[in-house]
Amino acid sequence: VKTLRDIGEDALIARLIRLAPCDPAPAAGPGDDCAVVDPGPSSETLQLLKTDALVAGVHFLPDTPAREVGWKAAARVVSDFAAMGGRPERFLVTLALPPETPISWAENLYLGIGDCLQTFHAVLAGGETSRVPKDSAAVISIAATGSVRREHLLLRSSAKPGDALLVTGTLGGSFAGKHLNFIPRTREANWLVSNFKPTAMMDLSDGLAKDLPRLAKASGCGFTLDRAALPLTAACTVEQALGDGEDFELLLAIEPARLPALLAAWSAEFPALPLSEIGSLVEAGQGETLQGGWDHFGGH
Amino acid sequence: VKTLRDIGEDALIARLIRLAPCDPAPAAGPGDDCAVVDPGPSSETLQLLKTDALVAGVHFLPDTPAREVGWKAAARVVSDFAAMGGRPERFLVTLALPPETPISWAENLYLGIGDCLQTFHAVLAGGETSRVPKDSAAVISIAATGSVRREHLLLRSSAKPGDALLVTGTLGGSFAGKHLNFIPRTREANWLVSNFKPTAMMDLSDGLAKDLPRLAKASGCGFTLDRAALPLTAACTVEQALGDGEDFELLLAIEPARLPALLAAWSAEFPALPLSEIGSLVEAGQGETLQGGWDHFGGH
Repeated sequence: VKTLRDIGEDALIARLIRLAPCDPAPAAGPGDDCAVVDPGPSSETLQLLKTDALVAGVHFLPDTPAREVGWKAAARVVSDFAAMGGRPERFLVTLALPPETPISWAENLYLGIGDCLQTFHAVLAGGETSRVPKDSAAVISIAATGSVRREHLLLRSSAKPGDALLVTGTLGGSFAGKHLNFIPRTREANWLVSNFKPTAMMDLSDGLAKDLPRLAKASGCGFTLDRAALPLTAACTVEQALGDGEDFELLLAIEPARLPALLAAWSAEFPALPLSEIGSLVEAGQGETLQGGWDHFGGH
Repeated sequence: VKTLRDIGEDALIARLIRLAPCDPAPAAGPGDDCAVVDPGPSSETLQLLKTDALVAGVHFLPDTPAREVGWKAAARVVSDFAAMGGRPERFLVTLALPPETPISWAENLYLGIGDCLQTFHAVLAGGETSRVPKDSAAVISIAATGSVRREHLLLRSSAKPGDALLVTGTLGGSFAGKHLNFIPRTREANWLVSNFKPTAMMDLSDGLAKDLPRLAKASGCGFTLDRAALPLTAACTVEQALGDGEDFELLLAIEPARLPALLAAWSAEFPALPLSEIGSLVEAGQGETLQGGWDHFGGH
C-alpha cells in the first residue's frame, strides 16, 4: 500500500485538491502562501486566508517552552501573510491535546500566541479544543484571516525569466533557536510592496532547496543559484542554508534593472538586515535543480 | 499538576481566552457557534469564521470509512454556520497524519469533504499537511468562512426568560451512524431565520445536557426541561438523548406567543422532520441543572 511517506507533500496536495470543489476565482485557492478572496470591486483590500499546524515531536520538542511554541504557531501564519504583502487580522486556534497536558502548558501556549497577536495588531476570534488519545502528539492548528491592499498583492506565480532572486536575512541553523523566536518579515514585506514591488515573493519555511523550486515552478521558470552568494547564518554550511528550513525569511524576484536602486534603498531602511542577490530565474527547463529541504512526510 | 482532564473544556476556554487579545467588536470572538465579523455598514452580510477538529480514536475509529470522516469533518462546520442563520463559503483543511497513512485514505477523506462542500455550495480555498509521529492520532482540522445576512444573524445569547425551547429531529444514538452521515440543518435554519426568527439558536454537538445549559447561560437565563417531551431516536433512552452528543440538530428559543404559528408552518414545510417543544427558559438561578454530555477532555 502506498503511504504518505512514499509520495511527499507537494504531490499529495496536488492529488487531494482535485478531489474537492476548489475556489474558481483567480489568485485564490490552494498553491500560494495564502488563499486570496476578492470581496468585490468596491473593496480596496483583498482578504487573505491561511491555515497552518504545529505538531509535538515534529515542529517542537517536549521541553520547548510552551510560550515559544505559541509564538511560533502564530508567527508562521503572520509570515505567510507578509509573503503576500499583507497583514494578519483574526485568528482561530484549534488545540488537540492529550488530557494529561498541564493546564499551565496550555496557558503558556496562549500567552505566546497572544504575544504574537499583540505585536502584529491581530486578534483572537475563536477556537476549538479537543483531546487526543493518551500519548498521542499534541497538534496546534491555527487558521487566520488577513488583508492586503489590492495593488500590494504579491503572488509566487508572477515572476519572469531574467528576474533576479533575493533573500532577506541569513539562512540555515534555525534549530539553534530561530525557528522559535523569529520575527516575521511583515515590516520589510510591506516596505517592499510599497516601494519596490517584487515580481514574486514567498516566505522560506521548508528550506531554499524546497521553496526556490516552488517559486520558479509557480512562475513557469527555471532558476540558477549562486551558492557562494548565499547569506549563511553564523557557523552554518551551504547545505544547512539550503536544507534546514524554517528560516522564515523572504524569497523575492525583481527585474534586474531595478536591483541597484532596491539594494541602496534597502540598506538605508534596514541597515541591520542583509538583502542578498542569490541567483536568477531562467526559461523553464533550463537552469539547475535542487534536492533536499524539509518534506512534511519524509522529514529531511 | 492540574491537567486538562481536571478542568473540562468550557473552563479551559474561559481561562485561555483571557490570555490573548480578543476581537473587541460585539457579536464577535469566542463563545458562540462561530465568530462574527462585520465588514462595515455598507455590507448586507456579516462574515462568519469557524474552526473545528476531528481526532482519530476520539471522533472516529480506525475502521471508519475515510469518506465518512471527511463528510463529518466538513458537515460539523456547516452545522455551526447553520446555527447562526448562515451558510458556509470557503474551507481550509489541515491534515496532521501519520506517515504510514495510505494515500488512498487521504484521498477518500478529501472525497468526503468534497461531497459536503458540493452539497452546501462551498469551496476549498487552501490547506496544510503535516505528519504526526508514528502511532500518533490523526487530526483533521477544518477552518471555514461563511456569511449570514445581517438581519438573519442568530446568537446563543439573545433569548429571554419565558421563551419556549425547541429541538429539531430526534436526539440520542448518534454512535449508531448518524454522527458520520448527518445532514446539517442549513435548510431548516435558513427557513427559520427568514420566517420565524428564533430569539436564540445553537447546534447540538455535545449533547443537550451540555449544550442547553450553554445556551441558557449565554442568554443569562435558567431553564426547565420536560424530559417526557424529548424526541427520542428509535431505541434510545432519555439518558442517551441527553448525553450521547453529536446529534447536530438545532436547539432554539422562541417567544411562546409565536409557537402555534411556527409549529403549524413547520409541519407544512418539513413534514418529515419533527420540531418538538422540550421546555422553557426561566430567570437566572431558577429552573434545573443538567449533568453529563460530552466533554472534550473528560469524555463522557
